Amino acid sequence: MNATVRQGTWAPGFDAVRDAFDAFLDADPEFSAQLCAYVDGICVVDLAGGPHLGLDDVTGVFSVTKGVAALALATIIDDGLLELDATVASYWPEFAARGKGSISVRQLLSHRAGLPAPEGGVTQEDVLHSERGAARLAAAAPLWHPGAMFGYHGLTIGILMEELARRTTGRDLRSIYESDVRQVHGIDFYLGLPTAYEGRYRPVLPPRGADPAPADGPALLTDTLADAAFGRLLGSVDEGLSAFGPNTREIREAGPAASGGTGSARGLARLYAAALGQFGTTFVSQETLEQMARLHVSGHDVVVDDEMSFGVVFMKPQPRMPFGSYRAFGHDGAGGALAFADPLHRLAFAYIPAPMTTPGGADPRAVELSRILRHCL
Amino acid sequence: MNATVRQGTWAPGFDAVRDAFDAFLDADPEFSAQLCAYVDGICVVDLAGGPHLGLDDVTGVFSVTKGVAALALATIIDDGLLELDATVASYWPEFAARGKGSISVRQLLSHRAGLPAPEGGVTQEDVLHSERGAARLAAAAPLWHPGAMFGYHGLTIGILMEELARRTTGRDLRSIYESDVRQVHGIDFYLGLPTAYEGRYRPVLPPRGADPAPADGPALLTDTLADAAFGRLLGSVDEGLSAFGPNTREIREAGPAASGGTGSARGLARLYAAALGQFGTTFVSQETLEQMARLHVSGHDVVVDDEMSFGVVFMKPQPRMPFGSYRAFGHDGAGGALAFADPLHRLAFAYIPAPMTTPGGADPRAVELSRILRHCL
Amino acid sequence: MNATVRQGTWAPGFDAVRDAFDAFLDADPEFSAQLCAYVDGICVVDLAGGPHLGLDDVTGVFSVTKGVAALALATIIDDGLLELDATVASYWPEFAARGKGSISVRQLLSHRAGLPAPEGGVTQEDVLHSERGAARLAAAAPLWHPGAMFGYHGLTIGILMEELARRTTGRDLRSIYESDVRQVHGIDFYLGLPTAYEGRYRPVLPPRGADPAPADGPALLTDTLADAAFGRLLGSVDEGLSAFGPNTREIREAGPAASGGTGSARGLARLYAAALGQFGTTFVSQETLEQMARLHVSGHDVVVDDEMSFGVVFMKPQPRMPFGSYRAFGHDGAGGALAFADPLHRLAFAYIPAPMTTPGGADPRAVELSRILRHCL
Repeated sequence: MNATVRQGTWAPGFDAVRDAFDAFLDADPEFSAQLCAYVDGICVVDLAGGPHLGLDDVTGVFSVTKGVAALALATIIDDGLLELDATVASYWPEFAARGKGSISVRQLLSHRAGLPAPEGGVTQEDVLHSERGAARLAAAAPLWHPGAMFGYHGLTIGILMEELARRTTGRDLRSIYESDVRQVHGIDFYLGLPTAYEGRYRPVLPPRGADPAPADGPALLTDTLADAAFGRLLGSVDEGLSAFGPNTREIREAGPAASGGTGSARGLARLYAAALGQFGTTFVSQETLEQMARLHVSGHDVVVDDEMSFGVVFMKPQPRMPFGSYRAFGHDGAGGALAFADPLHRLAFAYIPAPMTTPGGADPRAVELSRILRHCL
Repeated sequence: MNATVRQGTWAPGFDAVRDAFDAFLDADPEFSAQLCAYVDGICVVDLAGGPHLGLDDVTGVFSVTKGVAALALATIIDDGLLELDATVASYWPEFAARGKGSISVRQLLSHRAGLPAPEGGVTQEDVLHSERGAARLAAAAPLWHPGAMFGYHGLTIGILMEELARRTTGRDLRSIYESDVRQVHGIDFYLGLPTAYEGRYRPVLPPRGADPAPADGPALLTDTLADAAFGRLLGSVDEGLSAFGPNTREIREAGPAASGGTGSARGLARLYAAALGQFGTTFVSQETLEQMARLHVSGHDVVVDDEMSFGVVFMKPQPRMPFGSYRAFGHDGAGGALAFADPLHRLAFAYIPAPMTTPGGADPRAVELSRILRHCL
Repeated sequence: MNATVRQGTWAPGFDAVRDAFDAFLDADPEFSAQLCAYVDGICVVDLAGGPHLGLDDVTGVFSVTKGVAALALATIIDDGLLELDATVASYWPEFAARGKGSISVRQLLSHRAGLPAPEGGVTQEDVLHSERGAARLAAAAPLWHPGAMFGYHGLTIGILMEELARRTTGRDLRSIYESDVRQVHGIDFYLGLPTAYEGRYRPVLPPRGADPAPADGPALLTDTLADAAFGRLLGSVDEGLSAFGPNTREIREAGPAASGGTGSARGLARLYAAALGQFGTTFVSQETLEQMARLHVSGHDVVVDDEMSFGVVFMKPQPRMPFGSYRAFGHDGAGGALAFADPLHRLAFAYIPAPMTTPGGADPRAVELSRILRHCL
C-alpha cells in the first residue's frame, strides 16, 4: 500500500483508482475522504485518508440520504403497498386540498408536484417532525401547476417520503430502513445514528473560505423559490443549511430522509451493492429499482436554477455531472458526497469528502474517481 | 423632496428608492420615468421625473396591458363562467377545428396552444377587431402540438382573452374592466383611452439609436415563428411594432388586451394593490389570483427564443428577470414598463420609462428599483 | 454558366445562389456538393461541383433518409391505417411490455418514448434486420419515463417506422416507398439502391482531419445514452457510424429507414416538391403533412445533449439551425446533407456535401444556401 493512503485496501487492477485518490490527498493536506466501491459483490476499493476521516468514522452526507431513503421506500413499492401511478390523495386524503387531488406518487417523487415548500417556507420543525411538515404540505397550494415542470424538493421530498411510508404501512420509513434493509445486510449507514455510535461521528466541516455571516454589505434578499425550499425565506432560518444538517444532534438522532443520514462510504457502497442483489437475495426487486431509476425529469430545475436529472427520488447522471453510465442512479449531497449504483457496470460506489466542497452537489473529485474506476472494469 | 425628482412623494423608510430613482434621472437627462408602489394599501412611493413624463401623464405600456386584461378576465373565472380546466371549445365550438378540440383554457392562457399566429401571421386588423382575429385563430392549425411546449402568444393572447370574455359573458373584456374594476377603484389605467383624456397622453418614444428602416444591407428574412407572431411575416407589416402600439389613435381608442392599454404608473400600482384586496373588498378572490399566479410554464420559449416564465396570462419572475419574490405576478411591456403584485411582500409596483428601452421586456432599472424597494420592507 | 460550377443550371433570379455555391467550391478545391431546389414545381437550381460529386451521382445521406421514410409512412397515416394518437400496442401488442402500453404513435415518432436503444445498445443487426431490432425494442424497458422528455432515436426510429409499416399494412416500408412514392414521381432516391445503379454510387468520404482510431491516451468511456443509441455502448461497435452507413454494401442494398438511403440532391428535392403537390396529385394529403410537420418537441435533447426540434419524425428549423421558415420540415444527416420542404415559400431544397462535415448535422453551408435562396423568392 502506498504510504500516502493512510488506510485501506484495493483489489488488483484498481491501482489507478488508488493513485488518483492519493493524488487528491497529496495535493491538499487538509483534505480528507472516504472512498468505497463494490463490483459484483467484491469490495474492490476501500480507502480513507486525510486528517479528518478514517475508515471507521461516520459522518453526515446531507442529500445522499435521499437515495438511502428511496431504497427503503422501494421496499414498499415492491410490496405493492405504494403504486407510483396512484394519486397521492388515495393514500393521504388531506393531500387533495388546493387542487392537488390528481397529483400522482410518481410526480410527487420526481420533484414535479410544486411542493418544494409549504406556505411561508420550510422550517426545521417541518423536517424534524415530518408529520407536522406533511400536514403543512397537504394544506398548501402548489407553487407551480402540478406536473408542468420540476424543481428540486430539497427538504420536502424527505417529509413526503416519510408521510407516504406512514400512510401505506403505518410504520416510520426509518424503522423500515433499519429492520428490512440495514440490519439484513450489516450496513454502516443510519437514519438515526445510534447513541452507541456517537463516538464514531466526525462532524461535517464547513467549506473552507466560507464566510458564515457576511457582516457588511446589503442584507441578501431571500425571496426566491430556492429560499422557500431551503428554509431561508425572508431570513426565516438564519443558520441556513446547518439547521437541517447532521451536526445538529437532533437531526443526527432523527435521521430525516432528506438530509439527516449518517454513516460511512463503506456503508453506502455496501447498501447499493446489496440493492443490486450482489449479496444474494435482496430487499428490493430489480424491476422496481429499474422503474425508479429511469429518467423522469431532465433539464432546467426551477428551484435550483440549474440543469438536473432525476428518476423517482434518485438523482441521475447528466452532462454536467456524468457520475456513471446512463443506467446509474443514486444521489449526491450538499457537502460533496456521492453514492450510487450502476447496473451497467455492476458497480456500487460511495465517496465522502471533508471539509464540505462548494458549490453544492457532488465533488468533481467524486466524478473523476468514478470515471477512473469504470475504466478499470 | 430632493430637487432632482421633479415630482412626487415617498413614505419614511423609502429614501433608498427615491435615491435610486433620482440617480437614474441624473445619469441621463433625456430619461423619464414614472414609479409608483403600494404596501398594505399605502402608497409608499409616487415619483415621476425627466422631460417626458409627469405624475399626471398617461402613456402606452404595450404588454403590461396583458396583466390588466388578465385581472379583468379573473373576474369571469371567479364568477365560475370560465373554468381553467374546461376545453376552449366548450365555450367556443368553432375553436375545435384542426385538432384543437382538447385544448384547455389553462393551456391557451399559458401560451401552450400553439396559436401565436393564424395562417399567414397576425395583422393589425386581427388585433383591432378581435372577433375577426378570433375567427382566424379558430380556423387555424396549431403551430405546435398543443400542450407540447410554450411560446409567447404576444398578440394573439389578447385576441383570445377578448373572445373568451365575449363567449362566456356576452360582454367585451374592456367593458368588464371598465365597470367592474377600473371605476370601482378609481384606477388611472384604460383599455380604451377616453377622448377626454387624450390631452394627457404622452406618446411612446422610440428607443434611442434605433434605426427605423436599415436602408442598406440585405433585407431581413422574416419567416420565423416570432415573425408570424409579431406581425412581421414576410414583411407583411412594414411598420412593425408601431402598428400594434398605442401611438396609433385607433389602438389607443380600442385598448386591445394584448398591447393597447394606456395609463399611468399610479393607475397600474393602484390596480394591483386593489387586486390584492388592499382597499377592502376587491373584484377578484385571492384564491383565483393565486391559481392564476402559479407558475405554469418556465424555460425556453419557442417564439421569443429566450427563457420565459408565465402563469395564467401573468408573467412570473425568473432568474433572467427577478422582478419580485416567487409569489409575484404581473407583466412587462415592450417599452420597458413593468407592473406587478407581490403577495409575499404585500406589494404592488408599477414603473414606466421613456423613451422605450431595448431590448424588449422590463427595463433593468425596474428590476433594480423593485429590489431596493423590497429591501426597504 | 460560370466556369467554376462544373455542372448545372439555375433559373433567372437565382444567380445569388449559384454565386454562393461557386464561392464554397472556390474556397476549397477538395469540397464537392450537389444542390437542387424546386419552387412551385419548377427546378430553380440544379448544381453540382467539386472533385467527388457530379449531377448524376448518387451517394449516402445518413439521417436525411428519415425524412424520406417519414413521407412513405405518411401515406399509411393518410390511408387511416396508422393513427398518431393510437397506442403503439394497438398495432403491435408485444410492444406493451415493461410499462409501454400507453405510449402513442405520436410520442414514439417524436422521440419521446424512451427507446433510443434496446438493452445493451443498438447493433447493426437491429438495423439491418429490423424485425429483430423491433422485437428487442418491444421487450425493452424505456430509458426514460415515456413522454416525460425527448431524445433523438437516431437509429431506432427507423426500426420502429419499419415495424409500424409491417404491422399496419403487412408490407415493407421500403416497398411502399418504391411503389407508391418513388416510381410515381421518378425520384432519384432509394431505400435500397438497385444493383443497376451501383456504378453511380459515390462513397461517403470521412470527414477530413478525422482520426478514425485515436491510438494513444485513455480509451474513451462509452456508457452514455448517446453511446447506447448510436451503437457505441462499451465499445460494442468498434467501427462506429460506418457500421450503420451506406458505404457498407449490405446497408446500401437494404436501405434502412434511419440512415441507409442513397440518391442525389435532385432526387431529394424532387421528392419534397412532389410531397407539396407541386407536380399535381401527390401521394400524401397536405393535411397529414401539416400535422406531421407541426413542432412536437423542442429544446434539450437528452440523447444528443443539444438543442433539437422535431415534428413527427421530421426535423424542424430552430435557432441553432434555421434552415427554413417556421413551416419547413425535413431532415439533416450525419454527413452534412439536408433536405426539406418549406410550404411557406413553396420551396423544396436538397443539398449533399462531400466529404462529410463535422460536427454532425446540416453543413452550415446548407443553411446559408437556403437563406440566400429564400431571399431570391
